[in-house]
Formats: sequence, C-alpha cells, structure tokens
Amino acid sequence: MEQPQKKFMKESVTIKTSHVFPPDANHLGTLFGGKLMSYIDDVASIAALKFARNLVVTASTDSVDFIKPIRVGDAVTLEAMVTWTGRSSMEVFVKIMAEHLLTGERAVAALSFLTFVALDENGKPTAVPQVIPETAEERWLNETASTRAAHRKVRKQES
Amino acid sequence: MEQPQKKFMKESVTIKTSHVFPPDANHLGTLFGGKLMSYIDDVASIAALKFARNLVVTASTDSVDFIKPIRVGDAVTLEAMVTWTGRSSMEVFVKIMAEHLLTGERAVAALSFLTFVALDENGKPTAVPQVIPETAEERWLNETASTRAAHRKVRKQES
Amino acid sequence: MEQPQKKFMKESVTIKTSHVFPPDANHLGTLFGGKLMSYIDDVASIAALKFARNLVVTASTDSVDFIKPIRVGDAVTLEAMVTWTGRSSMEVFVKIMAEHLLTGERAVAALSFLTFVALDENGKPTAVPQVIPETAEERWLNETASTRAAHRKVRKQES
Amino acid sequence: MEQPQKKFMKESVTIKTSHVFPPDANHLGTLFGGKLMSYIDDVASIAALKFARNLVVTASTDSVDFIKPIRVGDAVTLEAMVTWTGRSSMEVFVKIMAEHLLTGERAVAALSFLTFVALDENGKPTAVPQVIPETAEERWLNETASTRAAHRKVRKQES
Amino acid sequence: MEQPQKKFMKESVTIKTSHVFPPDANHLGTLFGGKLMSYIDDVASIAALKFARNLVVTASTDSVDFIKPIRVGDAVTLEAMVTWTGRSSMEVFVKIMAEHLLTGERAVAALSFLTFVALDENGKPTAVPQVIPETAEERWLNETASTRAAHRKVRKQES
Amino acid sequence: MEQPQKKFMKESVTIKTSHVFPPDANHLGTLFGGKLMSYIDDVASIAALKFARNLVVTASTDSVDFIKPIRVGDAVTLEAMVTWTGRSSMEVFVKIMAEHLLTGERAVAALSFLTFVALDENGKPTAVPQVIPETAEERWLNETASTRAAHRKVRKQES
Ligand SMILES: CC(C)(COP(=O)(O)OP(=O)(O)OC[C@H]1O[C@@H](n2cnc3c(N)ncnc32)[C@H](O)[C@@H]1OP(=O)(O)O)[C@@H](O)C(=O)NCCC(=O)NCCS
Ligand SMILES: CC(C)(COP(=O)(O)OP(=O)(O)OC[C@H]1O[C@@H](n2cnc3c(N)ncnc32)[C@H](O)[C@@H]1OP(=O)(O)O)[C@@H](O)C(=O)NCCC(=O)NCCS
Ligand SMILES: CC(C)(COP(=O)(O)OP(=O)(O)OC[C@H]1O[C@@H](n2cnc3c(N)ncnc32)[C@H](O)[C@@H]1OP(=O)(O)O)[C@@H](O)C(=O)NCCC(=O)NCCS
Ligand SMILES: CC(C)(COP(=O)(O)OP(=O)(O)OC[C@H]1O[C@@H](n2cnc3c(N)ncnc32)[C@H](O)[C@@H]1OP(=O)(O)O)[C@@H](O)C(=O)NCCC(=O)NCCS
Repeated sequence: MEQPQKKFMKESVTIKTSHVFPPDANHLGTLFGGKLMSYIDDVASIAALKFARNLVVTASTDSVDFIKPIRVGDAVTLEAMVTWTGRSSMEVFVKIMAEHLLTGERAVAALSFLTFVALDENGKPTAVPQVIPETAEERWLNETASTRAAHRKVRKQES
Repeated sequence: MEQPQKKFMKESVTIKTSHVFPPDANHLGTLFGGKLMSYIDDVASIAALKFARNLVVTASTDSVDFIKPIRVGDAVTLEAMVTWTGRSSMEVFVKIMAEHLLTGERAVAALSFLTFVALDENGKPTAVPQVIPETAEERWLNETASTRAAHRKVRKQES
Repeated sequence: MEQPQKKFMKESVTIKTSHVFPPDANHLGTLFGGKLMSYIDDVASIAALKFARNLVVTASTDSVDFIKPIRVGDAVTLEAMVTWTGRSSMEVFVKIMAEHLLTGERAVAALSFLTFVALDENGKPTAVPQVIPETAEERWLNETASTRAAHRKVRKQES
Repeated sequence: MEQPQKKFMKESVTIKTSHVFPPDANHLGTLFGGKLMSYIDDVASIAALKFARNLVVTASTDSVDFIKPIRVGDAVTLEAMVTWTGRSSMEVFVKIMAEHLLTGERAVAALSFLTFVALDENGKPTAVPQVIPETAEERWLNETASTRAAHRKVRKQES
Repeated sequence: MEQPQKKFMKESVTIKTSHVFPPDANHLGTLFGGKLMSYIDDVASIAALKFARNLVVTASTDSVDFIKPIRVGDAVTLEAMVTWTGRSSMEVFVKIMAEHLLTGERAVAALSFLTFVALDENGKPTAVPQVIPETAEERWLNETASTRAAHRKVRKQES
Repeated sequence: MEQPQKKFMKESVTIKTSHVFPPDANHLGTLFGGKLMSYIDDVASIAALKFARNLVVTASTDSVDFIKPIRVGDAVTLEAMVTWTGRSSMEVFVKIMAEHLLTGERAVAALSFLTFVALDENGKPTAVPQVIPETAEERWLNETASTRAAHRKVRKQES
C-alpha cells in the first residue's frame, strides 16, 4: 500500500480508559508501575501502528515519570500520539490522567516517551511518514524531541 | 456532594482502545465473546460512574450483538455513553469498532446495551441525574430506550 | 461425521464451579459483571459445541440478569444447556448459583440467555440437530424461546 | 454452626468444566501442567470447604499424574471429592477428563490426590466430619487412602 | 546437536523470584496453592530443559509440601534443579523460600518433587545425560531419589 | 528497625527466570515490550525493597533498551541490583538475558534503569543506606549513575 509522505500528529491519537481494579494494585491500594507500563506499551504501539501502517517494535521506553499515585477505583486514561519521526523510528508520547470517579477530580499521574521502529515484511527497519505538529503543545513536543533523540543516541553508545 | 439534576449524554462518554492479543483469541484467531464482554463491562461501568458520581452495579446486560469477528492484531475501540435514565437506573450503550491496523479499515464489530443501578452508601438504589440527548443519534438512542426498558420489565417478571 | 437429527437438552449440560477470588471482585468484595460474563461465555460455548459437534460462534448475548451480588469466598456454579434450536442457531440458557461455603447457603445469582451459530469448515452457517425437551422446566424454557427469538429479530432490524 | 459427625463422599462432589484456550497452552498446543494444577487446586479446595464448612488450606499436593496431553479446543472437566478423613485433614481426589468437542471422544487425562487441613478462626487445625464411602469406587478410594496417608507421613519426616 | 553423556546438577539450577501480589492470595492474605504450583511448574520445566536440551513434558508432580503460608508483600524465591535421571526421565527438586521484605526474615515455605520426560522431534521419549551430584546436599537428594522413583512406580500400577 | 548506613550492591541482587509463553508474545512470536516491562518492575522493586527495607514506589522508569527480540519458548532471566543511592532515591539496573533452551545460546536482550523512592509509614520519602560497589562492573555502573541522575533532574524540570 502506498504510504503518504506526511501525516498530522492527531491522526495517530489513541485513547484508553480503564478502571483500576484491586488485582492491579499493591497493598497500599495504588496501581503498580508494571501494570501501568503494560498499558503504556499497548496504547503507544497502537498509535505507532496507526501512524506507520507497518509492523512496529518497541525499540526503547525512554522515560516514564510517575508523578502521582493512582488509586483503586479511579479511572485511568492514557492518551498516546506520535510526536517525532526519524527515518524508521517514531517517538510516541503518552499522557496518563487519573480521575476519582465519585468526585470527578482529575490529575496528570504520569508522563512517558517511547521509541518505536517500523519494520517491513523481512523485519528490516523501513521509512515512516514525516509527522506534522499543528497546535502549540504539539509543536513544543516536536521541538524538544531532538534533544531527547540525541540523549537516546548517547545512551545507546555507552551501553 | 450535591448532584446536578440534569446532565448531557456526552458528559459520560468513555473510550477504550486495546490491541487484540493472541491470548484474547480462539484458535480461529478471533477475539473471544467473553473477553469483549469484560471490556464492555469495564467501559460501561466507567460511563455510568461518571454520570451518577455514585457507586453503581451492573443490573443487566440487555444485549450484545456480535456483528463481525475481531481479529488478532486489530485495534478494538469501545465507546460507551449513558443513553437513558430512570430513577436509579441508567441504560448505557456501547459501540465497538474494529480497525485493521495495517490498512486502516474500520468497521462496527458489535453493539451492546446494559443497565446500571446507582447505590448510596448503604447499598440502596439512589436517584441519578436526568440525561439530556443533543444530537440526532443521541435522541434516537434515547427515544428507543423506553421500548427496551419495557422489554426488560417483562423479562424480569417472567423469570 | 454423520450428525443425529435430534438430541435431548440434557446431552448438552455443562457445569463449571469456581471460587470467587479477590482479583475477580470490586472494592465492595462482589464479583465483577465482566468476570461473570466471561465465565458465562465459556460454559455456554461448550454446551453449544457438545450439542452441534461443529464450530460455533457467539451471535449475541441476549440477556444477563444479575439478581444478587456474589461475594469473595463464595463458590459460583454455572449450569448451561441448549434450550432451543433454529436451523443453524441455538439458544443457550445459563443458570448461575452462588454458595456461601462456610454455611452452605445457596441462591440463584443470575440468569442468562445467549445465541450461538454453528459453522461448517468454510465458516458458513450449518444445520444443528433439533433439541428435545423432557422435564417440565425444559419444556417451559423451550416454549418461551420463540418469544425471545422474535424479540432478537426486532432488535436486529432496529440496529 | 454445629457440624454433622459424618458425611457422604458425594456431598463434597465439585465439577468444573473449562475450554482449553491458546494462552493456557504451550507451543505444542497442549495445556500447561501449571495451569491444570491451578484448576486442580481451585476445585479441590471447594470440595474440601463443602465437606468441612470451615476454612481450609492446602497441606500438600500428593500427586498429579499426567496421563494424556490435553489439547487447545478441548473441554477439560475436573471432578473432585473428599475420599478420606483424619482428624483435621482430608484427602481430596480429582479426576481430570478431556473431551474433543467436535468428535465427543473422552479420555482420562490426569489423576490427582491432595491433602487439605481445616482451620478454626484462630488458624489452628480443627476436626472435620468423618467421610462415608458408598459405591464400590468410593470404597476403593477410601481403603487405599491409608497407604497414601502413611506415605505422606514418611515423606514429611524425611524432609 | 550432540549431547554430553554426563552433566552436573548445578548446570540445571534455575531461580525465580516474584512479589506476592494481592490477586495471588486468598482473603487471609496468603498465597494460593494453585498459584505456587504454576510457578513450580514454570521453573522446574526450565531446569529440565536446560539439562536435557530437548523438549520436555511434565510426567507427574510427585509432591508439594506446603510448610508455611506465604504472605502478600513477601518475595517468594523458587530454586529448581535436576536431582536424578533415569533413561528419558528426570526428577526435579524445587525449594521455595519466602522472604519478608521489610525485615529480611527468610524461611522455607514449601518443597516439591516433579518428574519430567524428554521427547525427540517425533514426540517419543529420548535419553537424557546422567546427572552428577557434587555437594553433600546434592548427593542426599540423588540417593533418596531411588526410593521416590520406586514409590512413583507403585502409584502408577495402582491407578 | 535500625538500618545499616552502608550496604553492598550485591546484597540487593534479585533474579527472575520465566518461560516465554505464547500469550506473552505478539503474532511474530516475540515477547511484548509491555510484558517485559512488568517483569522489570517486579524484580527491580524487590531489589529496592531488599536494599531499603522500607516501602518503595517507582518514581521513574528511566530507560528500557530492547536490543534483541525474545522468542516464545526461550527462557528470559532478569537480574536486578541497586547501583546508586541519593538520599531517599535508589537507581536500580536490570539486565535481561534470553536463552534458547534447546541450544543453550544466550544473549543480552534488553537493559533497563529505574528509580525508586523509599517511603516511611506516613508515605514521606525517607533515607536509604549508601550503596558500595565492589567489582569493576559495579563501579562503572555507580560512576555513570551521576550523569543519569543529572539527566533525570533536567527531564523533571522540563515537564
Ligand atoms: C516518587 C514520589 C514519592 C516523589 O515525591 P516528591 O514529592 O517529588 O519527593 P521529593 O521532592 O522529596 O523527592 C524525593 C526523592 O525522589 C526523587 N524523585 C522525585 N521525582 C523523581 C522522578 N520523576 N524520577 C526520579 N527521581 C525522582 C528526588 O530526586 C528525591 O531523591 P533524593 O531523596 O535521593 O534526593 C512521588 O512523585 C510519587 O508518589 N509518585 C507516584 C509513585 C507511584 O505511584 N508509582 C507507580 C505509579 S503507577
Ligand atoms: C441491581 C439491584 C441493586 C436491583 O435491586 P432491586 O431490589 O431489584 O431494586 P429496585 O426494585 O428498587 O430497582 C432499582 C432499579 O433497578 C432496576 N432493575 C432491577 N432489576 C433490573 C434488571 N434485571 N435489569 C434492569 N434493571 C433492573 C429497576 O427497574 C429500578 O430502576 P429505576 O430506579 O430506574 O426505576 C440488585 O438486583 C442487585 O444487587 N443485583 C446484583 C448486581 C451485581 O452484583 N452485579 C454483578 C454481578 S456478577
Ligand atoms: C498445613 C498446616 C496447617 C499443618 O500445620 P501443622 O503444624 O503441621 O499441624 P499438625 O501437626 O497439627 O497437623 C494437622 C494435620 O495436618 C496434617 N499434615 C501436616 N502436614 C502435612 C503435609 N505436608 N501433608 C499432608 N498432611 C499434613 C497432619 O497429618 C494432621 O492431620 P490429622 O489432623 O488429620 O491427623 C501448616 O503446615 C501450614 O499452614 N502450611 C501452609 C499451608 C498453605 O499456606 N498452603 C498454600 C501454600 S502456597
Ligand atoms: C529496534 C531494532 C529493530 C533496531 O535495530 P537496529 O539494527 O539497531 O536498526 P538500525 O541501526 O537500522 O536503526 C533503525 C532505527 O532504530 C533506531 N534505534 C535503534 N536502537 C534504538 C534504541 N535503543 N532506542 C531508540 N531508537 C533506536 C535508530 O536510531 C534508527 O532510527 P532511524 O531509522 O529513525 O534513524 C532492534 O534493536 C530490535 O529488534 N530490538 C528488539 C525489539 C523488541 O523485540 N522489542 C520488545 C522486546 S521485549
């Protein structure tokens, strides 16, 4: 299938809302980091697939910052979108909100950046469309991405 | 907390997107009815909680119509909203879309109606705000709801 | 394999007993509707398979009425059987009992009706044996099935 | 609650039927030993609870003999009952049948013996009713149990 | 691949540490026997695979003695190794330790013996290397294995 | 409980070996990033708890680099240890090895750094012992940690 050469950030937006159930929480009643990380990977990989329309693999989870604990009974909403593109790699940003369902109070609970690589049928890295930011927030995410990409390169060489 | 007496349908909208993974599928590679039903219950109960801002329990799953199989590798998106209110009960409608992630093709895969009841701290049914439809689709869902509610009553008496 | 033209209801009976474990329950300690729905789908599809001896898919979950909450520590027993047959479709009825294991108290917790369709090797609907009720309860379930089938048709046209 | 001093074996019978799903199977398409063991523990503990009507803990899994592999798509049926009682301990026997759902072929797939101990509210071992076998198979299971109990004692001393 | 004729016990050692999470525990907050049994099967089969370097299946779980309850919040560490070899069968011993993570207190919580059989590509039992014990504990495990093997034979004939 | 002021890195070492099962893998038969991330969080939090002997929460997942795909049927071994300490925060390093069980071939599959914070009974950050590296690899990990810590600070300010 012919791929467009450019795509808007918002074409990749993917949303996932889940209840925080007791099995997903520690004995303090707050969501496990590990459980949240598997939600993040799920939603981020869908955003990358929608953008690339090709197989993708997680190349790295660049950061997950857990800002506020998320409690049993809350709804947690993850919003993922592609914020930057290299040749075959894409940076995906995921914003995680928690909502207390009885009061309606909402807060940012965590923020995460990941890198996915698009693969062709032979499992080789293949080109992705170029991402176009539109809003001010989108542009900020796109501009700060070069610094994050440079940091990933350094990390890779050191290890 | 003081509850508003009326609320718009859209204030309850809840969205959940998930990858269909192999463990969620049968040996034909299509999503289990049972797995989809647990996603439906999750997202519908969040919609009911957002609307009622009170504890809720599932009183009944009134129908789940499986229209098209959902395949491993697809993204499945559920969209839930409150479509009708009685005194303590709410009807929630869930629309389930499947998207083939490599081609971008999307189709309605299933439709479901459920009834939730709001409970106070003593576990007794308690009043919910009245729902207000706005768009044409919302009005249609709201108007046809009385027929569905009547049918539920009949079913309850018979059993 | 040659299929018999008629089969007794009881030849399809399938029973599943499970402990209600904490991960299956909300913070009130009662079983999630979604978890029960996946048990229902599991046991009902086995009943349909035993009856049809062909692949089957869930066409619809026609109703699940949650009558009484089921508590953590209870045993929940589901009993499924085919109650009605069309040409390729079968109605399956599932009765859900909860038992408090320390006292032995038992009660009906939920009732459910589902529709399955038998498929041949090419995925096309294929005929199933005709079901024969024997006891009074079986006959009642079989006779009231026509009304439920008519209601399913209406629901399908409307959506 | 007053406990009867004697109980029939059959009063403890507990049945659990499940579909074997792909996630429960290895890459040869046969059910994991570990998955079957968790079904065994679930159904055996319900049988022990029905018999003792007191809290119970698994003291030992005395044997699980895997006789035939169970395949994805099969139905697996476990049947558990108390076969022997000491003062606070009960032996539970679990018979595991596999059924190929398209052909109806059934075979014994595994056999297991476990020991449960009844506990009072302080977590101390407490007396259970004496078990009464009725059929020939029940009597055989009950009589051979003393040999198995003796073997458990030896094993315990050695470790 | 050419297989060595002899191998040291320690070449098969496999270790698995996990947190005990609330979903893995009953309402007394202690780990389910069934959950521990699935960990045992996982780690024991890896030990058997490392030793045989061939496909393996669980032939029997010969015993699991649950000595002390394991609590939510503890770390549970399983250590598995091959302790005895027949021609195609291997006995695997698993020691289960629980650690209270706030105090550092550790205790043996359970002990288990299992038998695995190595299979060739056609699913037929195939020879495994002979196991060589080195330390005093290893020799004790190896010597007492003949008694356990004899007991397994008796059990098999009786059933 | 009185805490020591210094502790060796190796006192925190935690190992977890698991089989890669089909439900943990995508349709290419390789382990999901999200599944590996939940294993990483599990083993890293045990290492942090062993070190701090206090409650801990994941403050951030600083990086996970997925170097090589991990295949169904492989054993995956995670090794975690505390590599750096601030006042209340600890950096944990996790090395992930994959082993092909039929050939014995092993390779580094991923590398990860996380930050945990120790909390007292009131949920406030509390001091941890100072970590002492011993081997050359441990010293390298400890020395490069300051750069990673500085980078985390920058990331936190920006977001
Ligand atoms: C981690 C947490 C306790 C830090 O709280 P805080 O108010 O920022 O605390 P402080 O400013 O006193 O910082 C305490 C330490 O945490 C470190 N820290 C704070 N945020 C951090 C981050 N995002 N990444 C790494 N370290 C961080 C600080 O550097 C400081 O380290 P030091 O004591 O070694 O100097 C808080 O952010 C929290 O509760 N987050 C949610 C944790 C959680 O629930 N995780 C699972 C989520 S699903
Ligand atoms: C739902 C439940 C609270 C209703 O209790 P009840 O004693 O029938 O309550 P009421 O007769 O006062 O009815 C309350 C409302 O529920 C509605 N209702 C009751 N049963 C219903 C059913 N089966 N389907 C749909 N609505 C139902 C009534 O119509 C009424 O609506 P209204 O207030 O808008 O007029 C009760 O049946 C229950 O607790 N069920 C178990 C719920 C559960 O645990 N779900 C998960 C199961 S695994
Ligand atoms: C089972 C348990 C309560 C026994 O405690 P104990 O101090 O040995 O108790 P006692 O010596 O009084 O023995 C009580 C009964 O248990 C039996 N028993 C004890 N250990 C046993 C074993 N390993 N296998 C079989 N029976 C056993 C005794 O024979 C005795 O039987 P009787 O009353 O019928 O004569 C104790 O070992 C325990 O709590 N184990 C952990 C259980 C658990 O958590 N299981 C899940 C683990 S993940
Ligand atoms: C991701 C992977 C395909 C990259 O392979 P590679 O041989 O390094 O490929 P290349 O050097 O051609 O790099 C391809 C792209 O990936 C990027 N990349 C490679 N490693 C990366 C890392 N650790 N972090 C971020 N980006 C990375 C490169 O910068 C390059 O980007 P660009 O095309 O936009 O310029 C390979 O490392 C892999 O298969 N990893 C395992 C993926 C996996 O299974 N994830 C789940 C594990 S549980």
